[in-house]
Amino acid sequence: MVRRFINQLGEREAVDEVFLVAEKQLRANRNGNLYLQMRLSDKSGSLTAMLWNATDQIYSRFDNGDYLRVQGTVQLYNGAMQMIVNKFEQEPTSEIDEADFITLAAAQVDRLASRVGEMLRSMQNLSLRNLAECFLMDDSFMSRFTKAPAGVKNHHAYHGGLLEHVASLMELVTLVAPRYPELDPDLLLMGAFLHDLGKIDELTYERDLGYSDEGQLIGHLVIGVELLNGKIREAENLAGEPFPRPLALHLKHLIVSHHGEYAFGSPKLPMSLEAVALHHLDNLDAKIHSLGQIIRDDANTDSNWTPYQAALGRKLYKGALVENETGDAETEE
Amino acid sequence: MVRRFINQLGEREAVDEVFLVAEKQLRANRNGNLYLQMRLSDKSGSLTAMLWNATDQIYSRFDNGDYLRVQGTVQLYNGAMQMIVNKFEQEPTSEIDEADFITLAAAQVDRLASRVGEMLRSMQNLSLRNLAECFLMDDSFMSRFTKAPAGVKNHHAYHGGLLEHVASLMELVTLVAPRYPELDPDLLLMGAFLHDLGKIDELTYERDLGYSDEGQLIGHLVIGVELLNGKIREAENLAGEPFPRPLALHLKHLIVSHHGEYAFGSPKLPMSLEAVALHHLDNLDAKIHSLGQIIRDDANTDSNWTPYQAALGRKLYKGALVENETGDAETEE
Amino acid sequence: MVRRFINQLGEREAVDEVFLVAEKQLRANRNGNLYLQMRLSDKSGSLTAMLWNATDQIYSRFDNGDYLRVQGTVQLYNGAMQMIVNKFEQEPTSEIDEADFITLAAAQVDRLASRVGEMLRSMQNLSLRNLAECFLMDDSFMSRFTKAPAGVKNHHAYHGGLLEHVASLMELVTLVAPRYPELDPDLLLMGAFLHDLGKIDELTYERDLGYSDEGQLIGHLVIGVELLNGKIREAENLAGEPFPRPLALHLKHLIVSHHGEYAFGSPKLPMSLEAVALHHLDNLDAKIHSLGQIIRDDANTDSNWTPYQAALGRKLYKGALVENETGDAETEE
Amino acid sequence: MVRRFINQLGEREAVDEVFLVAEKQLRANRNGNLYLQMRLSDKSGSLTAMLWNATDQIYSRFDNGDYLRVQGTVQLYNGAMQMIVNKFEQEPTSEIDEADFITLAAAQVDRLASRVGEMLRSMQNLSLRNLAECFLMDDSFMSRFTKAPAGVKNHHAYHGGLLEHVASLMELVTLVAPRYPELDPDLLLMGAFLHDLGKIDELTYERDLGYSDEGQLIGHLVIGVELLNGKIREAENLAGEPFPRPLALHLKHLIVSHHGEYAFGSPKLPMSLEAVALHHLDNLDAKIHSLGQIIRDDANTDSNWTPYQAALGRKLYKGALVENETGDAETEE
Amino acid sequence: MVRRFINQLGEREAVDEVFLVAEKQLRANRNGNLYLQMRLSDKSGSLTAMLWNATDQIYSRFDNGDYLRVQGTVQLYNGAMQMIVNKFEQEPTSEIDEADFITLAAAQVDRLASRVGEMLRSMQNLSLRNLAECFLMDDSFMSRFTKAPAGVKNHHAYHGGLLEHVASLMELVTLVAPRYPELDPDLLLMGAFLHDLGKIDELTYERDLGYSDEGQLIGHLVIGVELLNGKIREAENLAGEPFPRPLALHLKHLIVSHHGEYAFGSPKLPMSLEAVALHHLDNLDAKIHSLGQIIRDDANTDSNWTPYQAALGRKLYKGALVENETGDAETEE
Amino acid sequence: MVRRFINQLGEREAVDEVFLVAEKQLRANRNGNLYLQMRLSDKSGSLTAMLWNATDQIYSRFDNGDYLRVQGTVQLYNGAMQMIVNKFEQEPTSEIDEADFITLAAAQVDRLASRVGEMLRSMQNLSLRNLAECFLMDDSFMSRFTKAPAGVKNHHAYHGGLLEHVASLMELVTLVAPRYPELDPDLLLMGAFLHDLGKIDELTYERDLGYSDEGQLIGHLVIGVELLNGKIREAENLAGEPFPRPLALHLKHLIVSHHGEYAFGSPKLPMSLEAVALHHLDNLDAKIHSLGQIIRDDANTDSNWTPYQAALGRKLYKGALVENETGDAETEE
Repeated sequence: MVRRFINQLGEREAVDEVFLVAEKQLRANRNGNLYLQMRLSDKSGSLTAMLWNATDQIYSRFDNGDYLRVQGTVQLYNGAMQMIVNKFEQEPTSEIDEADFITLAAAQVDRLASRVGEMLRSMQNLSLRNLAECFLMDDSFMSRFTKAPAGVKNHHAYHGGLLEHVASLMELVTLVAPRYPELDPDLLLMGAFLHDLGKIDELTYERDLGYSDEGQLIGHLVIGVELLNGKIREAENLAGEPFPRPLALHLKHLIVSHHGEYAFGSPKLPMSLEAVALHHLDNLDAKIHSLGQIIRDDANTDSNWTPYQAALGRKLYKGALVENETGDAETEE
Repeated sequence: MVRRFINQLGEREAVDEVFLVAEKQLRANRNGNLYLQMRLSDKSGSLTAMLWNATDQIYSRFDNGDYLRVQGTVQLYNGAMQMIVNKFEQEPTSEIDEADFITLAAAQVDRLASRVGEMLRSMQNLSLRNLAECFLMDDSFMSRFTKAPAGVKNHHAYHGGLLEHVASLMELVTLVAPRYPELDPDLLLMGAFLHDLGKIDELTYERDLGYSDEGQLIGHLVIGVELLNGKIREAENLAGEPFPRPLALHLKHLIVSHHGEYAFGSPKLPMSLEAVALHHLDNLDAKIHSLGQIIRDDANTDSNWTPYQAALGRKLYKGALVENETGDAETEE
Repeated sequence: MVRRFINQLGEREAVDEVFLVAEKQLRANRNGNLYLQMRLSDKSGSLTAMLWNATDQIYSRFDNGDYLRVQGTVQLYNGAMQMIVNKFEQEPTSEIDEADFITLAAAQVDRLASRVGEMLRSMQNLSLRNLAECFLMDDSFMSRFTKAPAGVKNHHAYHGGLLEHVASLMELVTLVAPRYPELDPDLLLMGAFLHDLGKIDELTYERDLGYSDEGQLIGHLVIGVELLNGKIREAENLAGEPFPRPLALHLKHLIVSHHGEYAFGSPKLPMSLEAVALHHLDNLDAKIHSLGQIIRDDANTDSNWTPYQAALGRKLYKGALVENETGDAETEE
Repeated sequence: MVRRFINQLGEREAVDEVFLVAEKQLRANRNGNLYLQMRLSDKSGSLTAMLWNATDQIYSRFDNGDYLRVQGTVQLYNGAMQMIVNKFEQEPTSEIDEADFITLAAAQVDRLASRVGEMLRSMQNLSLRNLAECFLMDDSFMSRFTKAPAGVKNHHAYHGGLLEHVASLMELVTLVAPRYPELDPDLLLMGAFLHDLGKIDELTYERDLGYSDEGQLIGHLVIGVELLNGKIREAENLAGEPFPRPLALHLKHLIVSHHGEYAFGSPKLPMSLEAVALHHLDNLDAKIHSLGQIIRDDANTDSNWTPYQAALGRKLYKGALVENETGDAETEE
Repeated sequence: MVRRFINQLGEREAVDEVFLVAEKQLRANRNGNLYLQMRLSDKSGSLTAMLWNATDQIYSRFDNGDYLRVQGTVQLYNGAMQMIVNKFEQEPTSEIDEADFITLAAAQVDRLASRVGEMLRSMQNLSLRNLAECFLMDDSFMSRFTKAPAGVKNHHAYHGGLLEHVASLMELVTLVAPRYPELDPDLLLMGAFLHDLGKIDELTYERDLGYSDEGQLIGHLVIGVELLNGKIREAENLAGEPFPRPLALHLKHLIVSHHGEYAFGSPKLPMSLEAVALHHLDNLDAKIHSLGQIIRDDANTDSNWTPYQAALGRKLYKGALVENETGDAETEE
Repeated sequence: MVRRFINQLGEREAVDEVFLVAEKQLRANRNGNLYLQMRLSDKSGSLTAMLWNATDQIYSRFDNGDYLRVQGTVQLYNGAMQMIVNKFEQEPTSEIDEADFITLAAAQVDRLASRVGEMLRSMQNLSLRNLAECFLMDDSFMSRFTKAPAGVKNHHAYHGGLLEHVASLMELVTLVAPRYPELDPDLLLMGAFLHDLGKIDELTYERDLGYSDEGQLIGHLVIGVELLNGKIREAENLAGEPFPRPLALHLKHLIVSHHGEYAFGSPKLPMSLEAVALHHLDNLDAKIHSLGQIIRDDANTDSNWTPYQAALGRKLYKGALVENETGDAETEE
């Protein structure tokens, strides 16, 4: 039978389907009655689900990360879909098609990782190419790099999201850098690769997405510098000669300044052309991805607008998607 | 004899060369003695020049926009080159090679204008292509569009600067838009063409660069909307049918939101994906161009840093230009 | 029987009365049960009402804008009055006294519109008087101008609110302008008339109050300039001579700068004395009206203070209304 | 002979006239040579004057506040008029017509003070009228109140400026308050009278304008509350009964909140309708006066714009003064 | 039987204990059913409690400030403990051990008040010592000073909190001042004593904690200056000689500037070394106390972090408390 | 002969004394004439000096860091002392008493360094004590640590300034930490030691004070974490066991958050009690030191106020130093 994905569910629809569960919580309502709240997801998205009149026993019957078969009804609550669960049971892993749940398929991850390697290996600068090689041949690093999300809530907040964002940004760099001869393309490409690497330790993503203590206490900018320092030592051992110090400083500057403003946690403003370019390109890729996601996830087809996005201080206009077709009907007088 | 350009002049160098003059002023120093101050330029840049012990007669011997042969000496004053003029006379126009003074050669202007037309005519959307045609076939508009600067002080502040910036941004759009399927490439391209068009009336650029009353009172965002309204009326007459109203609104939104923040004079925040993309790409092109200019103009070769740029709140790092060569000398311990 | 108005209802009071309905929604509570939520209003105010255990059938039994006879009970919920509806039915329009529901009676609207015309026709400046006439004799414009609200949530958020605000501001101008000889009274009066006219297209107000796509994408400042441009063309046709260009620019400047700060969406700061005066007088009229409304609407008579107003960053002090009477009791030691 | 006033002086004009002197300073230029700098004024304005090659003896030949006959030449320096003094001598007071130097003539001061008294005595509220009487019959207070400026640099920065501003604001209140029935007119009028009274101790104005230690350490808002507390005690003695405490608190609130924002040194935001109204009306009167002054003082008739005003973040548009006459010449195409 | 304190209660625990009640409210839920909400406290903390299906009769059976014996169950709701009450009755005062409910025991209050007196009497400056004596010997003042809280929500928000904060700050001053010879230790100590005294009138604390009208309208900084003015008059009468005026101004400056920034309601920035020192030491004591309280009150032992604190813009890290013990387990690789 | 120190020099005083020279520059004035500008200092302070009519030869006769005997005259220029130099020559080092020039005498440096060691060795936490030992026994580190300034312009901007600030802050910690039992005293002490250590590489201080490329590109917060990482590796080698990871993270958090706000370049806000305490104590020590310096350096004895300090947004009040003596004269009426 064809699976019904989360982003296909309609209001008041009855559901009987398997989902990946996360963020389970046993909570009391105002009356002191217990209920179970959890997050159900598949590769198309996620929604909050509630089971009323829960107990400690029910709560402990499964763990986050399990696959559950769930029966219930979908409701619109405060503008978001949620499910009222009537019944659930664990689904044997043997029955699961992982491709239904993983946002990026293994093949896609492989393709992106291979493309990142290809771009890095195409750099002219020997020092940078050696340094890149130390990352690429570190299996433990590559395993975390290809698994980590790029965020918890905003852009690319899913397994593989970091890889997807980094690869996309590097592609942008290879397109844009040649248009500005004053930019050093290798430096910018390596900066694009490095800028968010600290997220592999800032975030936790084995099961639920979250922040590690390290992430909260020092953040991915400083962690990224620490990772780079380690790899520079390896590159020096590998090459048998010191890594150029100004180049090392410039790479670190690209990392610590890429948020672009003090208010966003950059301890330094971008002070070189490459740092300025990296900040703007990163911002472009992240914003298009995250705002595009908000628009794609908006279930309401009655309005040209998403609900107000407090974090952005605005609603988003979805009209671009339909305006050409409907353009015939409404006209400029 | 080979011309010595402004960006080649060294400290304490004696000069005897022809320059384009602007911003002439007869001023009194603290002691009440009069002196003449003016701005001399050629295509490589400009510097301030002073003639001590001036008079009303000397002041009225030439006009802004004239070519003067000037003898004097170059000095470094507060970190900027200036010239102390000993003697000057008007240079007959017949002796001038205009290519030495015009930032963008006529051929370059033609090439860019033609490329802009080419990109606009390649749009799929018929309404937008018709609209674009109304701009392209308006000779009076094209003459101002290809002459206007993009600013008075910051990026692209010279004749043809607006064209150069718009063409560069449109090229960026053609590269970047295909990477994001959620973006409407025609809408984004037309937005890139339109976003700064109001500058043809906001600025004055027949002789000196400055702001018109209209520019100061209502600004190039609102002027741009007025220009667009006029052309939409023409396009409707041409096509014999109304221009799609949602499309018109979206184009206006791209114009009024492209500064991206209220604090920069946008009356609306970017609310569609195209508006967000346009804002970031515009910012990228303008910043790389203007910061690159600051670095290129910095005469001091003793430091890896430009002087502090108050408008940016930082110094700029010039090191990228030399670090690979010097990288051998200094190393990461 | 004497009608019981919304602002007279007390806590836990039983109600059987006719109201105008708006913003009807069929929503699910946390348990997945459906309920109907709507906004009931009469000319004295509005409150939220809920009908539990609703269905699609119930939901579709009436439309926004209908008059409903409602039976229910009033409750205080989170500091605001709301009604729990037990039963409702449509009320035949023939039974309705519209004066109970319209904030501004038709006679009042007529009086205000006529007063606006009178003030505009008293201007000395012929160009401005001609321009004003083009607005006044445009029936379609006047019909929208006298119907539009001045806002969705804040000041004058009801039919006729725009007219009421504009008339009040124009009266202020006629009082205040003569005290400052450096102000051009006609320019200021015309600015007061024009400043918010864009709201007739920015807002939707046939039934519910809201923002149009145009309003959200370009805003009432830019729309106002577009409206003015159209009327200037009419005035030129009418007068057979061009409208003075500096005067046109100054009027547009009054419109685009009247919010006074970039942060409030003005693309230009007020730069003339008239623009500065208009901004402050507009602010004064809007603030006294909207804060006065908050104080009048506050149902709690136990406190000298309204609840905290997040948008204002403060509570409001209601004490002025009673302090003289109670002044005898409490004294300054 | 007819006096030549400062605002009539032209560039490079020779001067031989009597001025009031202030802010004299013996300064060294970069070369270590001493010069005398001072501020010369008459009732039409003031300018900076320099005498080169000064000595201690020259410096001590006169005091601030003296009248000097000065011979010299006027120059434009950095956009402002200044005078290069060749010679000066003290002018016997018997030769002076004080009316040439005092901004507000004694008769004007008397008229304004009497008008302030008249408005205060017309209040309905007996407690406020008694309180006002305690101010009006205190000769020492009235002498300082009628002499104090309203500021050092900005609006009404001259003897009598405080009185002029307070009287103007009170006139505004009498015009505007009746339009808003929710405002208590007496409270607002008394607030207008009190709001800046602390300036009589915050500023020093016997000779030069400046800030007292008290003014800098605690400011005119807190000083104003202290003054009010003293007068309330007097009013209670006079009336033989306590002053209504809520009324006293409200008056203090009007004083401490009238700057309207924390950033401008108000320890409280305006929280009553009267406090909001007072803030906006005060702002209106002060802004029109100070910006009008900048426009009147601008010596440059070549431009429609004043120089950039850093404190305001903008240039000011002077065009309103001439546009009607020139309106015929320039037209909207 | 040993009392079970609020900070010892665990999730889903049944309770039968006596509490002090405050903030009782009869509220309607969304369905229009009434419930009773109140705040129960003992000296270890407080929690919100609800009684479902309440009536006006139940609501009026007790007053805020009464002691109630309560039976119910504790639940975790939105991360905070709350109690669902099944039954309650009034507890005779004779059965109460006040020490279980008062945050600061009478003995502790006495000790702190006596320590404050001791520090003040140890000052070298005779004028300040006389002034301090006027506060210390004013029984009515001391009674309010020792009872007042230091805030409503943030630091030291309980009876005696003001005394505790002032005493702690004065102890800090006696430790820190001697390390900086440029500081006047007596001035700083007196400033620490005075800085928050206005809170005795700004807040209401006979029963519930709240703000007085006076507190909201003029605030504790201005009230503090008024209190000081009164005591200076007493000190002058006592000493038979005037209080040094510069010293009085400096003390007032310490009061009005101690919040350190305009944004926090200081009408003046700290401008003397003592004012700067007082601001930073006050901030230190208040922050450690209030953040420490948030950490101590956090009931969740599963995380190293408190929930997000919106007022602080961050989570707080609780790890310091346990990291040494757990340090063995986790190591730096 | 007794040396005349810079802070003893009066206006128009003739000088013949030896100074340490820095920041020499050959500059052109507006007329194109060359002059030599340099900074002369001794341990009491520094001033700018100018030699008119300089040449390249004169410029190259000495280096920054030399001792020069200078003859000239002191002048007040724009409120600051400067010297007009008539003549200078190099002074043989043998004639120099270094104690006249070094802000911190060697003995003082030794005493402070030894006190820092003593405090670190008194910590209870073994891991922290081992870590501290790795710093203390690293001669190369200690040599830089005791030589570095704490800043270029603000607080402790001289050789040894970093040591002085760190030692002073650690003394504060030992006094203050015991008053707050919730603080971990060892963690706070180690944080105080570490917080600014990155300045040893951020700044250049062999001769002139300035910023290194590394300092500008990544800043002392990130450099400090790098230094700490190196020492943790040494400590682990020394101890033969891993350094507790939560402790390492907490130390890094203390470093990266100690500026307290994003706007001051902290990539993380202080999130633990120790981080909050460190931020406030650091701020206190730095502010009292730097503002005290401004007051001590202010040469003008005619005013109770320093000139306006743009970086602080205020003048500073110097009155505290004299008010007790002068208190007799002026009194509170």
